[in-house]
Amino acid sequence: MSDQGYLLKESDLLPLALGAAVLGTGGGGNPYIGMLLAREELRRGASVRILPLASLDDEAYIGAVGGIGAPVVGVEKLKEGRECLRALRAVEAAHGASAVALISEEIGGANALAPIITAAQAGLPVVDGDGMGRAFPEVQMSSFFIYGQSPAPAAIADDKGNVLVFREIVDMFWLERFARHAAVDMGAGAGFATSLMTGRFLKQTAVPGTVTQAIEIGWTLLDARAKNDNVVDRLLLKTGASLLFTGRVVDVQRALTGGFVRGEVRLEGLGEDRGSIARIAIQNENLICLIDDRVAAVVPDLIMNLEISSGEPVTTEMLRYGQQLAVIGIPAHDLMKTEQALAVVGPGAFGYPDIPFTPLDWQGAGSRMTGLDAI
Amino acid sequence: MSDQGYLLKESDLLPLALGAAVLGTGGGGNPYIGMLLAREELRRGASVRILPLASLDDEAYIGAVGGIGAPVVGVEKLKEGRECLRALRAVEAAHGASAVALISEEIGGANALAPIITAAQAGLPVVDGDGMGRAFPEVQMSSFFIYGQSPAPAAIADDKGNVLVFREIVDMFWLERFARHAAVDMGAGAGFATSLMTGRFLKQTAVPGTVTQAIEIGWTLLDARAKNDNVVDRLLLKTGASLLFTGRVVDVQRALTGGFVRGEVRLEGLGEDRGSIARIAIQNENLICLIDDRVAAVVPDLIMNLEISSGEPVTTEMLRYGQQLAVIGIPAHDLMKTEQALAVVGPGAFGYPDIPFTPLDWQGAGSRMTGLDAI
Repeated sequence: MSDQGYLLKESDLLPLALGAAVLGTGGGGNPYIGMLLAREELRRGASVRILPLASLDDEAYIGAVGGIGAPVVGVEKLKEGRECLRALRAVEAAHGASAVALISEEIGGANALAPIITAAQAGLPVVDGDGMGRAFPEVQMSSFFIYGQSPAPAAIADDKGNVLVFREIVDMFWLERFARHAAVDMGAGAGFATSLMTGRFLKQTAVPGTVTQAIEIGWTLLDARAKNDNVVDRLLLKTGASLLFTGRVVDVQRALTGGFVRGEVRLEGLGEDRGSIARIAIQNENLICLIDDRVAAVVPDLIMNLEISSGEPVTTEMLRYGQQLAVIGIPAHDLMKTEQALAVVGPGAFGYPDIPFTPLDWQGAGSRMTGLDAI
Repeated sequence: MSDQGYLLKESDLLPLALGAAVLGTGGGGNPYIGMLLAREELRRGASVRILPLASLDDEAYIGAVGGIGAPVVGVEKLKEGRECLRALRAVEAAHGASAVALISEEIGGANALAPIITAAQAGLPVVDGDGMGRAFPEVQMSSFFIYGQSPAPAAIADDKGNVLVFREIVDMFWLERFARHAAVDMGAGAGFATSLMTGRFLKQTAVPGTVTQAIEIGWTLLDARAKNDNVVDRLLLKTGASLLFTGRVVDVQRALTGGFVRGEVRLEGLGEDRGSIARIAIQNENLICLIDDRVAAVVPDLIMNLEISSGEPVTTEMLRYGQQLAVIGIPAHDLMKTEQALAVVGPGAFGYPDIPFTPLDWQGAGSRMTGLDAI
């Protein structure tokens, strides 16, 4: 990667979507439709450069765009493709400044693709990084907002021609509330643009390199599948993620309450884990992994369920009895683990005030593998 | 009244509030708090001129402001007093123009006072007229919107510092939806400003003279009370309204459904009406008056319940068993009775597609009186 980044190729889009789904940690919405929209833009001749954070001018303004929907997994998808661009233009007008690049608030799931589609339409580059390093269900749960992104001006736009500007907003929680309800009115497929941020601010607050990370995760999975390798083991080797558990789903409890998918999935151990039980608390995303009642991983660290046979990430709404899963963990970026961040994205923020955040460590690559042959 | 209207006196405010409550036709929210806020502004030295429509410059921009709340009777009141001014400023900024005067979308109830408070704060006059000539529960139900007021830019502001701009909006029904839900988020006491209108447009679409009409209705009631006259009869003489029925409330059915107070009140006749039964269908406001199952008056014509003893207007949520009421009717302004208007504010728009709109006629003053002595 040169100092000025690299041009996104059409062949990067499928891996990006797959990697974004992995980083969705069970939520974030399906990136597939966004991938198709982005591919269409590239085929029309648009080109999108992925810019390293370090290359940003300190004083330049960068826009952040993404889909926003009803807080239910799977609906954060754009309908028509230019909603985010219209929202961005409204933010720029309210701000009296123009964005020179775009960034995602959320690399996990569908919102990995949203800035790429908009950047292709606007002729802008996309910054290699995001505000979560994963998926989270609410607007305020990004490193940008945690570290002081202004809640206003922001804007939301739908596919029908409605554009609302959040012109003066008390704090990021009010922004979440207003934007979420407007998105519901808009039919749960709205484009959202938050306030412009400077290059200096992003260098301090963005989780770096996550567009490239998603593409590399996706390539690793696709390559392993093509070679009939064990996909999960290839991913563990590539990323240094921890294999937390391998098991078979024996129970899924899931309910839609308060606009969230909440519940628990229970797995009986396979292979080395035979005789153990894993339980994963879910709220749109995977939140907490307990193995034999011992805390193995806690939000904001990343907990991902992959089908052992294919390495396919399994979203929380796709969990089914009998699935054979590898539960893997990746430490969240340090920006998401400060006291300030944990107040917004730690277990307490999700209704588990009694579970302390116990950070995952990076494992040595290959420290523990599924040990299963490719299927 | 000179061509340039008249200065509103502090002593006009109580009559204005009382007259606005009468024109609220059972809804529109209580104007009392707004009256106190307006009085405070005048006591601080503000002066507010009431301008006749004819005096407006064709090219001048006029702003429309009011409170907006959850669609439940009684909550359309401002909390802090400057919410509408902040909303107006946001509309002016989005429009790139300034208002030279203000007008009410709704003279009935609390929103008669909102433009006066804001005008006092902004140093602007208030136009003698409004967009309903009464109260209606939803944003689109004004002559302004019916005849083409742009749904955008509009803005909503709360007492906490939040300001949302409806920058591009498909139609007035979308504006109602977005604004209503934002108002609910804001705690049901938000200030709302709709798009600027020209003097030319207002001369064609405003219900004229309704600020003065409300003040005169209020003065008539207060004067009759002071003189121990029969208040209702004085009002009938003054306004030429029809006395539809006098009776005693024998049943009130009322439920909060779909955000509206819906139901029916039943009265047994008194005096000349002894032996008859009146039923009034209510949905926030009084919608349809049936006497012995014959339609006596239908929305958008004004149906008002007044206590016989005091002439006090009784809002739909204050209806109680045993109350002795005079039900009076006033024809809606012709602007509210065109085919175009009836589609938005006729009986069909309120869920009575089978009841045709049968317009009330103006009665000769004194054509029928309660005939009751003052109490």
